[in-house]
Amino acid sequence: MSDLDTVAMTGAEALVATLADNGVTACFANPGTSEMHLLTALDKEPRIRSILCLFEGVATGAADGYARVSGVPAMTLLHLGAGYLNGGANLHNAGRANTPMINVIGDHAVPHLKYDAPLTSDIIGLTTPNMRWVKSAESVDVTGTLATEAFVASYGPRPGPVSLLLPADSAWSPGGRPGAVASPPALRTSGDTAIAKAVSAIGTAETPLILINGTALTEQGLEQAARLKAGGLRIMTDTFYAKMRRGAGVFTPDRMQYFAEMAMADLEGTDLLLTAGTGLPVAFFAYPGKPSLLVPEGCETLDLGGADTDSADTLRRLADALGYQDRAAPAVLSLPEAPSGALDAAAVGASLARHMPEGALVSDDGVSNGLLSYLPTQTARPHDWMMLTGGAIGQGMPLALGAAIAAPERKVICLSGDGAGMYTNQALWSLARENADVTTIVFVNHSYRILNIELHRTGAGNPGPTARDLLSLGGPNIDWVGLSTSLGVPAVEVTTAEAFDAALAEAIAAPGPRLIAAVVPG
Amino acid sequence: MSDLDTVAMTGAEALVATLADNGVTACFANPGTSEMHLLTALDKEPRIRSILCLFEGVATGAADGYARVSGVPAMTLLHLGAGYLNGGANLHNAGRANTPMINVIGDHAVPHLKYDAPLTSDIIGLTTPNMRWVKSAESVDVTGTLATEAFVASYGPRPGPVSLLLPADSAWSPGGRPGAVASPPALRTSGDTAIAKAVSAIGTAETPLILINGTALTEQGLEQAARLKAGGLRIMTDTFYAKMRRGAGVFTPDRMQYFAEMAMADLEGTDLLLTAGTGLPVAFFAYPGKPSLLVPEGCETLDLGGADTDSADTLRRLADALGYQDRAAPAVLSLPEAPSGALDAAAVGASLARHMPEGALVSDDGVSNGLLSYLPTQTARPHDWMMLTGGAIGQGMPLALGAAIAAPERKVICLSGDGAGMYTNQALWSLARENADVTTIVFVNHSYRILNIELHRTGAGNPGPTARDLLSLGGPNIDWVGLSTSLGVPAVEVTTAEAFDAALAEAIAAPGPRLIAAVVPG
Repeated sequence: MSDLDTVAMTGAEALVATLADNGVTACFANPGTSEMHLLTALDKEPRIRSILCLFEGVATGAADGYARVSGVPAMTLLHLGAGYLNGGANLHNAGRANTPMINVIGDHAVPHLKYDAPLTSDIIGLTTPNMRWVKSAESVDVTGTLATEAFVASYGPRPGPVSLLLPADSAWSPGGRPGAVASPPALRTSGDTAIAKAVSAIGTAETPLILINGTALTEQGLEQAARLKAGGLRIMTDTFYAKMRRGAGVFTPDRMQYFAEMAMADLEGTDLLLTAGTGLPVAFFAYPGKPSLLVPEGCETLDLGGADTDSADTLRRLADALGYQDRAAPAVLSLPEAPSGALDAAAVGASLARHMPEGALVSDDGVSNGLLSYLPTQTARPHDWMMLTGGAIGQGMPLALGAAIAAPERKVICLSGDGAGMYTNQALWSLARENADVTTIVFVNHSYRILNIELHRTGAGNPGPTARDLLSLGGPNIDWVGLSTSLGVPAVEVTTAEAFDAALAEAIAAPGPRLIAAVVPG
Repeated sequence: MSDLDTVAMTGAEALVATLADNGVTACFANPGTSEMHLLTALDKEPRIRSILCLFEGVATGAADGYARVSGVPAMTLLHLGAGYLNGGANLHNAGRANTPMINVIGDHAVPHLKYDAPLTSDIIGLTTPNMRWVKSAESVDVTGTLATEAFVASYGPRPGPVSLLLPADSAWSPGGRPGAVASPPALRTSGDTAIAKAVSAIGTAETPLILINGTALTEQGLEQAARLKAGGLRIMTDTFYAKMRRGAGVFTPDRMQYFAEMAMADLEGTDLLLTAGTGLPVAFFAYPGKPSLLVPEGCETLDLGGADTDSADTLRRLADALGYQDRAAPAVLSLPEAPSGALDAAAVGASLARHMPEGALVSDDGVSNGLLSYLPTQTARPHDWMMLTGGAIGQGMPLALGAAIAAPERKVICLSGDGAGMYTNQALWSLARENADVTTIVFVNHSYRILNIELHRTGAGNPGPTARDLLSLGGPNIDWVGLSTSLGVPAVEVTTAEAFDAALAEAIAAPGPRLIAAVVPG
């Protein structure tokens, strides 16, 4: 069969060439037998860098990080329905982050499907609820055109992951034709009517607030937010967002609090709630007797466009229409003193603020330790912060991998809970293999600490021994230094703020992957 | 809210009590906020043992192993759609193994769903293609009855995994009522007509063969297979099966070969192919120019019932109808000499045969090293062998965990490829925590070796540097001893047959979890 390769383009080659023609430059892969022709097609495509991931959840999380940083979707290579399922949770997260991503999922040859071989599954059925777009290239001649279509579909109108199934016979057959180079659709613009309504409502409101997400969180978007702030609006981001510019020189909005009762207290008195690049605020979980929708009673709400709109542009037009010229002051560089004493998330945050270089990228899957690490970095050197938007823990290390591949010149910091980190610890191996410039900080408290908090908040009663065991990661304690070094990433454990500060300074100074096991209170 | 617990049963308590009433004794769990009331319900249910798994693929794989050994479905506790997705690949495997399993998937409170919170997903849509049965307990009063229904549905007619969604408000509200204790349905019986047809066809066939799976592979089923063999039929099992009794005193059928061309060569000349407890043999993957259906041309086929039938009973009735009284000889105990020299899969198999105690349970996810470890154990002490039936690697260690929980008095041996083992290495931590009596053997060849073979078989051409990198697990090599000990399982690496033999003898003599990193040729 290898003669075919020289006489005509295979479907796999047409697909890969089309994605490369459209600007895709990275493929996070975990292949199987049905994707062998995709492998040799990738061999022939120097414009795409292939990165092996030992678990598909690493591949999809990395593709998410890659696109958040580069602005261009990455390709993943997944093995049949099982490979998709392994990558599914981070695809859910990517969908909630509105991250474009092109998942190429190998399938059995079309004539093979009817025999229901052991790895056969209904991939269209399994993927559809988790995707913006799904199609199968059921003949070789459509592999190129569907690759173009997948690329375009990943941009939206609401960006997100798409899946293109590639049956093995479509991959191996000659007759592939590259698809067109397409211009991906831009985000939508909010309507003039909405802007006019907002101007009018703001004119009569006493305590207007605008909740923002999306492009409003870029450096340009935050400059517009600073105009609205100077004009008298309160500016607040969603609790979780895909990426925000932060630090010295950047205007700092408030952040919606995670726990519903705290968010409601914070919003109390707001009489106008505008939303741009997001929807109305909603509690992460429901709790007995507590509201789901976090809008104060009597507060007027006004939608300036959701995740499918260019919220930076919305803010600019709104500030123009309001005639606001001034800008609220940006954060001024202010680095904390070196922390000392017991190590906790606040000390981690202080050290982060001290040592993060300009342009750093943070991947935050820190769960119960996330917020206290976040706050001190507000006045650090300018950087970008990336959050877990979909709530499926285990995104942090894969996202950091993808970010590092997209921006090898920038330092990447990963914050991960120990529970979260165990989900996708395979990412460490890929960080080592790619010599990715990522410093991973694992908050080691040997527990699902957030759940110990939530157990009480949900009113589930006092935990007995079974519940306690199900929320503890102890017995045995995980040796994160051993785990990390076994996968090729040098690691150190620290138990004091001083030791953490020194370890972080050293890790940031050294290029390549490092891990710091930060032992914090449980 | 905790007062409610004392005045009335919650939905979570009704669900858990119903499953316990029906004989469920184990719950493999990874909870989140939406499952807090399930945790405290499990606290109150001493009949169910809860086992924490740090990744949901471990929970579903362990539940599979538990049911294969105990014959009773285990419960899993999964966190929303993301938790299901993480467990999805081993659910696919369990479906292909026809293993009953009750997945309890927490969902948001029903009134919360319409707000599309970050972790909201279409769980019914995501699970349905992977399940025998799915329902959501959308009010507290149905939690008990649906638990009974789920229990019954997991038994079939074709056994397999089912999912019961439990919205958080149905879990926390009082008003739960336990469901009935039900008699699960038995497997179907094949029809008399089919048996009569088979008798007639066998009478005129020259080289009849019966392909078997399911209950035909129990000790009782194989006794009936031995009667058919003595009467002149060739007996063959599927390449992969959920569990088979093997070793001294047990009749040994042939096994369908994995590679299609070898299977076809082996079947050549067969003029009658009967199937019992399975379907017609199909190639695992399609290959260019090769057939999918592995039935020789002109060979008559006859279906004696699929995975929903009691194939042991089918064999008994067929042997009765044919008047076969004799039995082919069972395997006679014959233990190999201690292997020496270079370590390879055959040497591993020889040591296994030497040291496996009577009643051992083997979980085989050995991929390219599976077959050569399998063959020498044919004349070992009697044991049960469990295979990866669904092709989604990463089942071996979780399955072994579940088997050990189900049968603490039996020694469990896990065979895993290094690529396979990396998928669900979190299982090692649960093995340590539960002090499970499992000896895990990882075949360390630092490659997806099976794919290096398949690359050539699919005619994908010669691998260039990209393809080679995507099939290699080197750069860095994974330190399996370090990985295992970091998760609490004592481990040793061996590179010679002599050292492996000694390490295996020691691991089998010692109760509790051990891991042997067996370095074999790549």
